[in-house]
Formats: sequence, structure tokens, C-alpha cells
Amino acid sequence: MISDKMVSLVKNSSVIRAMFEEGRKMAAEFGKENVYDYSLGNPSVQPPKAVTDAIVETAYNPDLNYVHGYMSNVGFDEVRDKIAASINKRFNTAFAKQNIVMTVGAAGGMNVIFKVLLNPGDEVITFSPFFGEYRNYVSNFDGRLIEIEPDTETFQPRVDLLKENISAKTKVVIINSPNNPTGVVYSLETLKKIAAILEEKQKELGTSIYIVSDEPYRELAYDGVEVPYIPCVYRNTIVGYSFSKSLSLPGDRIGYLVIPSEIDDYEDVFAAAGVATRILGFVNAPSLAQLFVSKCLDEKVDLEIYNRNRELLYDSLCKYGYECIKPEGAFYLFVKALEPDDKAFAAKAKEKRLLLVPGSTFGCAGYVRIAYCVDYDMILRSLPAFEALAREYGR
Amino acid sequence: MISDKMVSLVKNSSVIRAMFEEGRKMAAEFGKENVYDYSLGNPSVQPPKAVTDAIVETAYNPDLNYVHGYMSNVGFDEVRDKIAASINKRFNTAFAKQNIVMTVGAAGGMNVIFKVLLNPGDEVITFSPFFGEYRNYVSNFDGRLIEIEPDTETFQPRVDLLKENISAKTKVVIINSPNNPTGVVYSLETLKKIAAILEEKQKELGTSIYIVSDEPYRELAYDGVEVPYIPCVYRNTIVGYSFSKSLSLPGDRIGYLVIPSEIDDYEDVFAAAGVATRILGFVNAPSLAQLFVSKCLDEKVDLEIYNRNRELLYDSLCKYGYECIKPEGAFYLFVKALEPDDKAFAAKAKEKRLLLVPGSTFGCAGYVRIAYCVDYDMILRSLPAFEALAREYGR
Repeated sequence: MISDKMVSLVKNSSVIRAMFEEGRKMAAEFGKENVYDYSLGNPSVQPPKAVTDAIVETAYNPDLNYVHGYMSNVGFDEVRDKIAASINKRFNTAFAKQNIVMTVGAAGGMNVIFKVLLNPGDEVITFSPFFGEYRNYVSNFDGRLIEIEPDTETFQPRVDLLKENISAKTKVVIINSPNNPTGVVYSLETLKKIAAILEEKQKELGTSIYIVSDEPYRELAYDGVEVPYIPCVYRNTIVGYSFSKSLSLPGDRIGYLVIPSEIDDYEDVFAAAGVATRILGFVNAPSLAQLFVSKCLDEKVDLEIYNRNRELLYDSLCKYGYECIKPEGAFYLFVKALEPDDKAFAAKAKEKRLLLVPGSTFGCAGYVRIAYCVDYDMILRSLPAFEALAREYGR
Repeated sequence: MISDKMVSLVKNSSVIRAMFEEGRKMAAEFGKENVYDYSLGNPSVQPPKAVTDAIVETAYNPDLNYVHGYMSNVGFDEVRDKIAASINKRFNTAFAKQNIVMTVGAAGGMNVIFKVLLNPGDEVITFSPFFGEYRNYVSNFDGRLIEIEPDTETFQPRVDLLKENISAKTKVVIINSPNNPTGVVYSLETLKKIAAILEEKQKELGTSIYIVSDEPYRELAYDGVEVPYIPCVYRNTIVGYSFSKSLSLPGDRIGYLVIPSEIDDYEDVFAAAGVATRILGFVNAPSLAQLFVSKCLDEKVDLEIYNRNRELLYDSLCKYGYECIKPEGAFYLFVKALEPDDKAFAAKAKEKRLLLVPGSTFGCAGYVRIAYCVDYDMILRSLPAFEALAREYGR
């Protein structure tokens, strides 16, 4: 009796769910410490202590109907004020609360903005490899996801293929940098090229093409690399931010959209975002979380922990003969599978109790994603398995 | 550039938003204490102290990556266990965690279950008057909302009209008791009649027709009235519960679906609900809220405060010549407008600084909704305005 769409969604979801279940079973069979689960992007670094303090302070606010009550669907005015000020300080922008919509994480924000923008059949462009859930977010509103094939040398977006993929139906180009699943940070030069193409095509087609910048990994950048702020590069940019990784709060479901006043049809888009937030069933981002993150805007998780994982895993895998670019952000390595079929390779890895996600999930077959947001000790314990796996393939 | 659907959604939303804005302006002009805002269902009674204690205890849990991390999309196992046990104790049911899906409030739950069940063109039946957002939740999935006209004598559902409104496309009948906007509690007798008709039509049509019981007001019942638990009356029932009103936590966005094992296609429906939770962008209900409400399942807000409001307002309005049934639940009075056009009447009321929502918003013209989840003192201050308004109409 479930809907036709859900039948196929459940079927397609079962690959990753099967991995979960498999991991649990393996942990029961071999012991948790002997299973090396690199499948999940669930932060392993603790939230800063300031988060706990902020929650407690908020909980003790005597005005409980304020802390736990409804506010405007776009979020508390004072929270949006603080977030705008914090962005302005960092990126020299001029946002105010009327540019901020609080959302149920970045996933909530993406759904809100697609609900606002997409007519059935409208096209959303994504550069491969990409976060597989984009397929579902776009299909929720009967849009079409256009995948631009990857540059497997650098994993920078194939800007050379952008122009030919833009049509009169193109409403959105998704940018996700630092990228899931590659960890790559898109360079300012690349972003400027994308912006120039979009400006040109907008003029030619007489349409508006928005960049939706999905930024859950913005704060996770290593080696001092800068992650360019796209609204400063391209006018029609909407940012989807999340505190899931920057403060290790993925379960709390808190993030925001930045809708700059400069975008085409700003007033309609902002008003519609508030309505979409309500009718999609979010109503508003969780009130307690809005209030406590607003007290932690200058806080960060300890990046050095992820960095240590990155260095150890990257160096070790190279040594064993794997091919991989060294990522500058997020907490993923995107490693070339040692045979063309990434699913077969992931199955072989599983025999060594290594749980890796096939790259085809991210629109890029022949690779696997390794999420290194795990305990350093687990990485150490897993290294012999990675080495043995490489040996099996004659490395 | 916003989508065609959003254009009309924003336009239709503007009636209520205009009321908000108007209320703010009036407060600025006449002073906040001289504006009598009865428009919003935002709880005025404080959450129980146990809520604050539970938040603080949860925040201090040393395993911060557990408290703030991802869990299964359907929610924490241990939270769902506790909720199932709590329901079983109250209603003599036999639910377990595999019958519970944690949701972003009842609105999130309704969207999840409609995503799961509805193909485009499928029909959802609602009894007028009804919570106007159902229109949007159903239209999110291209379903058709079928409104059964009201019985304005009792505001019990017109069961006599149910059969003729059921077709082969009927997937869901929404029940919302205690009801928004009338406050009426549907009697066990009425529910049994509905169940019998649905059983009969299911057999005749060879379809499954689910009751979706939207229960944010379950705990708000007065005069010792019992609110029947519908899964005990009709097998194919899915419950959407929320802590928004029972614990005065509407901003926190926390609730759950009950999906009994006995419903048709239980396994598909439950699996699809988890997937729908993820891809609609909720991902999961807020983790902190899941954990802290699970410590407060036996807590309630102080109902006597709402009851005092109800008695004062009901008695006063009757004395002034208004017609209204005395509601047994929720925190609304649904009062007959003193002229046939409820919008014109609400406009007249606004001249007296009384903000009331026209019944047509709830599919029932000729009435206004008065939300009495307000300060008792505001009610006292507003009484002369209600009296003067009645006089204007010759009462």
C-alpha cells in the first residue's frame, strides 16, 4: 500500500541500510574492536564544552515559553541577527536577519530551497562525485538532477562541461565544498569560472540560475586552506549551512539558509522559504538548538583530531599502494578501488572487516569513500587489513 | 522565479501572516496590554520543571557524541522502547520500538506518513472544521483533500456523509480529537461508527484505508472526559503524536508516529517511514529532545490554568449572547460569528483589538476560532471588548 515512489526509494536505500545491518552483525560475530566501520559521516570529535554550557544556560532561562515556544517560522529574530553578524565579521558581507532562515540542518535547508525554487521538470546540476541524497531532495519536488561527470585527476568540478549542461530549465547548480565524498575544496579560480559561465548563460537564456552552496563541511579545512565564500563570488548564491560537523551536532538538526538580498526575486524567495519551512512539516528549526548554537558561533571542534586521522590514513594507504588525492577538507578519503567494480571491491574489503562505501553511491564508480571521523585507534587496528587487501590485488 | 505552487502557497499564507503583522503593529500603536491576541495556538502554560531538569541531565551526559550524534533515522532505540512502554501502560496495547518513529513534531509526522502512503491523486478525507495545514501536507504529495461538511450543532464528525465520500482512491481518513479548531472530543460511539464504515468499504473496494490520528491535543481534556485511543477501535490506525502541547514544547519539534504491527503492509510502511524521514530532510527528530522527553513521559502541564481560561471565556461569551458549544479539550473555542461572513466579523472584532481567526481557514465559514492559551489577565481585560462587539450586533 505504500506509494510507488516510496517502493523504489526503499529499495535503493537498502544498500546503505544493508551495510549498517552487516556492520552490526559483524560486530556481534567478531567483536566490535575487530570491525573497521568507515561507512558513516557521524562526527567522532566531541562538541566543544561551550555547547554543554550553552544548553544548560538556555534550559535555565526562566522564560520557558520563550525557550520552547513557537517563534516566526524562519527562526528567532535575535538568533538570526547574531548569525548574520557572525558571517559579516568573517566574510565582510552585509547580511541582516532578513537574510537568514533557521533550518532543520542542511538537509532541511536544501529541501526548503528546492521546494521554493523547483517546478516539476526543472533541472538541478551537480558535479560528480556528490552526496547521493541530492537525488532524493530534487526528486521530492519532481526536479531532474543533472550529473556532470567527474575529473578523477583532481576531483575539482568539470567546469568545461558546465555550459553544455545548462538549459532553459536549469534552476540550480549545487556546490558542495569541502566536498562529500572527496574532501576536496573547490578553488576560488574554479568558482570564478563557474560564476562567469552562469552569468553568461543567465543573460543568454533570460533566466535566473541559483548556486545552492551546501556547506556542512565549511569549518573542516586543513593545511590552512581557505574555503571561498561563494556569495562573494556569484550574486545568485543561496547558502545552506549546518552546525552538524562544525560543532559535532548532527543529531540536533540545526542549520540555516543564507538568502542574500542581492539575489533575483529576493523578497519572494525569502517569504516562500518561511512558508515552505512550515508546510514541509519542519514548522521551525528546533528552538532550544537555535538558542544554544547562537551562543557558540565562535566555537569549533578540535580539528587536529581529524587531521591526525587524515595524515595517518592517507600516508598508510599510499604506502600500501592505494591511489588517492590528499583531501584538504571534510573527513573523507575517496580512494580508487583496486578493481574497476567498486561494489565488488567494497565486498572484498568487507571480508577484511573494512566497511567502505562504493563510489557509485556518489555518482562516481570505481572508487570507495572512507569516512575517517573515527577513533584513531580504530585506524591503527585497521591498517593491517588495508595492507592485506592491497596485497590480494598484487600491490 | 519561485515555483508555481509556492506562488499560491505564499498568497494563501498571507492572511494569517497579515494577522501577525497587524497584531504587532496594533501592539506598537495601542500598547501590548490593549491588544487581545487570540489568534495563535502557542501554549501559555509553562513546561513542567522536570523538562528543565531532564535537559540539564541530558546535556551533562559525558557521551556527547551519543547525545548529539546521528542515530537510526527512526530515532534512538531506547527512547522508542520507553515511549512504547508508556503507551502500553496507558492503553493496554502491545507496542514495541518497531512501532515507533520519532518525528519533528506532529507536522513532521503527518508529512512523513503522507509521503509514505500517497500516490498523486490519492484522496485524504478530513471532517470539517479541520486544521487548515492539512491542505498543504496533502498537496505536498499531490494528494486530494476531501472535506466532509461540518455538523454545526455538535461539531462531531458527519459520519452519515463518510460512506459516500470514500472512493477507490481513498487512502487516509484524518481524525483530530481533541479537535483544532473546535476543542470537541470525538466520542467512542462516533469512532466505532467510523471504524465500521471503513471496514465495510475496505472489504467492498479491496483497498486499505488508514486512519491517521493527529493527536497534539490528546492530553488536553477537561471535565474528566476520556479521549479514546483509536488503534484500539480500528486496526488500520497510525497515530501522529506531539509533545508540543502536552509538555508545552512546540518550538522543540518533537513527536512520534505509532505504526502498529497489525496495520496492512506494516513492514513496508515502517521501513518507508524511516526512509521518508531521511529524504524529506528531517533526517531524524532532534536527538537532545528525543532524550529529554523520554525522561518526562509521565509529566503534564498544569491543565487547571487552561481550564480556568476556558470557564471564564465560555461563561462570559455566553452571557454576552455569543453561541458556542463548550469544548471538552484542546485550548480553543469555536464561536459563531455574529454575521454570516466570518472574515467581516473578524475584521469588526479587530476594530475592538480582538484578534480572532476566521472559521473559513478551517473549512467552516461563519465561525471564528479563539485560542485561549493566553494569560488569564488578558482574557479579563478583553471581556469589555467582547461585550461591546456583541452589543454592536444587537445582542
